[in-house]
Amino acid sequence: MLVNGRHYLTVWREGSTVRMIDQNLLPFRFQVFDAADHRATAAAIRDMTTRGAGAIGTAAGFAVAQAAGEAPADAAGFEAYVQAAAALVRATRPTARNLFYAVDRVLAAALAALPDIAGARSAACAAADAMAREDAETGRLIGEAGSPLIQDGARVLTHCNAGWLAFTDWGTALSPIYTAARAGRRAFVWVDETRPRLQGARLTAWELSGEGIDFRVIPDNAAGYFMRRKEVDLVIVGADRIAANGDVANKIGTYEKAVLARENGIPFYVAAPFSTVDVDCPNGDAIPIEERGEEEVLNATGPDAEGTLRTLRVVSPGARARNPAFDVTPAALVKGIITERGVVSAGEIAARARDAARAS
Amino acid sequence: MLVNGRHYLTVWREGSTVRMIDQNLLPFRFQVFDAADHRATAAAIRDMTTRGAGAIGTAAGFAVAQAAGEAPADAAGFEAYVQAAAALVRATRPTARNLFYAVDRVLAAALAALPDIAGARSAACAAADAMAREDAETGRLIGEAGSPLIQDGARVLTHCNAGWLAFTDWGTALSPIYTAARAGRRAFVWVDETRPRLQGARLTAWELSGEGIDFRVIPDNAAGYFMRRKEVDLVIVGADRIAANGDVANKIGTYEKAVLARENGIPFYVAAPFSTVDVDCPNGDAIPIEERGEEEVLNATGPDAEGTLRTLRVVSPGARARNPAFDVTPAALVKGIITERGVVSAGEIAARARDAARAS
Repeated sequence: MLVNGRHYLTVWREGSTVRMIDQNLLPFRFQVFDAADHRATAAAIRDMTTRGAGAIGTAAGFAVAQAAGEAPADAAGFEAYVQAAAALVRATRPTARNLFYAVDRVLAAALAALPDIAGARSAACAAADAMAREDAETGRLIGEAGSPLIQDGARVLTHCNAGWLAFTDWGTALSPIYTAARAGRRAFVWVDETRPRLQGARLTAWELSGEGIDFRVIPDNAAGYFMRRKEVDLVIVGADRIAANGDVANKIGTYEKAVLARENGIPFYVAAPFSTVDVDCPNGDAIPIEERGEEEVLNATGPDAEGTLRTLRVVSPGARARNPAFDVTPAALVKGIITERGVVSAGEIAARARDAARAS
Repeated sequence: MLVNGRHYLTVWREGSTVRMIDQNLLPFRFQVFDAADHRATAAAIRDMTTRGAGAIGTAAGFAVAQAAGEAPADAAGFEAYVQAAAALVRATRPTARNLFYAVDRVLAAALAALPDIAGARSAACAAADAMAREDAETGRLIGEAGSPLIQDGARVLTHCNAGWLAFTDWGTALSPIYTAARAGRRAFVWVDETRPRLQGARLTAWELSGEGIDFRVIPDNAAGYFMRRKEVDLVIVGADRIAANGDVANKIGTYEKAVLARENGIPFYVAAPFSTVDVDCPNGDAIPIEERGEEEVLNATGPDAEGTLRTLRVVSPGARARNPAFDVTPAALVKGIITERGVVSAGEIAARARDAARAS
């Protein structure tokens, strides 16, 4: 996507360095963060310098490729090093499927080339690069598949950020809106601010501004109000992991919007590539849900009137908080899943993911 | 309630001055604001120095009593002045029923004594003082009526602040919890932070800390997550206005929690005095919903690490927001309304409110 007239990916590789748009500074500062080795990349995933299902998948794949470059040049030492690196990367964030998918795929590519160390290194880089390209391309295809759902003047509600900042490019939930807009159909977007980290108010709002799409930020509390007033035509959200039965893990609050959409007769769509589907996970209750630190709830960050980034306490002194980062939306609440191969019902997502894996 | 060992009401009258706990500074500073005349009291209602259905009712009644004290000593001039003051107070906030109820009652008391100006002034003060006492007493009675719903170890979810800060004393939604705790039954409270103004995270958390009740603040987005995990036994919220059919206007987000409670088989209670019932309002769609300034969504306020109160921008620069302050929960989602005369079904609330008015 274009930032100040230049095309940027969300995360990319230049030799042994992984570069990424620093999403902890956006939208107040646009700055590229450089991770010099796999440990720095893993730390950047953990602290959400890069975030979003696809972007952390791409970064995780790059991290394993970095580890392959750093590893000792004997087969046993190489394998031990990259396995340890893979374990470190897997431990950064537990919920998003893409991260595990990417780690496993790059690791398998590297190990398959052993004992040829140079071959293993180049195979790891090639696998990671291929996944980054695929992530961008599936985002584009999801835009094409979902675009017919966006009629001219459609009022779409979205939660969190499943735009191009959440993937290598294009994104999932926002990609149909971008594709429709380029075809001349304009949508209006209700942007849930998405507490506690405000990815809607910060990242989705920043993306939509850049794309010239009309939108309003609303407190998460107000989504049901606008639904009940019939000011929302459809809901599109992303996904961090989809279980075999079609249950969807996504940013905390997604479940609330899904229940409210059904209550108000509003179609609720999930947009996600097949790499998000965990066919070994029977249902949503088996998806591990990350609980993050309570300081994300207790504090707010942003620029003061002089532009200095500051952190304030917004909750009563001494009060404690809980901060689950994701929730599970039952498949029955999902009207359809917008994939790179068209809109699929939640019930058939596992079968279609297996088809896609066989075809690729 | 006790603050630093001293009993405070939320708002009270000392001669011609209306005094109130400054709720824009809580929980970071405890400070009493003095409104010297009816215009200052009206401004304090508008800018939410005092807030909450009962507290703004009490403050509104005091404002009309102040106006009676300020008015010219001829009957025509007196009436014109207090009518204008009543109009000013009515225009401060549109949704809460108690405000209009209080203005009308104090105004009627004053006008009934005319042409006796001294009598009108003392009647206005007496009516305003009586309503303040009644507001505190109904809060206590609501606590007694709702307390049996709180079993030992009950996990109660509440939204916004309907505690003693929202009324003259005791409160509504929190009063049954306080009453149960004094009877030896301890509840755990899930406190919705309640964006955008964070009355849950700030005021309810501060109240519960002072009362020694265990609680955790959660993002509004997480309420559904904890409900689905069966970690919420019941929901109790307040009300700003209840229509004749039992539809309930309350803080934005209440409707979302009510839909989620029904989805998860969790009883959803509203706690409110009969003065909240607007028997002339046929249903929730007829309740005027206040839309407040977007800066409440765009900015966050609180103390920095040095304790200096600051305001930060938390939303993407240039982005616009919408900020409806209340929503409507249909009567069908309400298990019961906890009143000063016991728990009443939403469907019979208007009839019971008429009974109560006749009896008083």
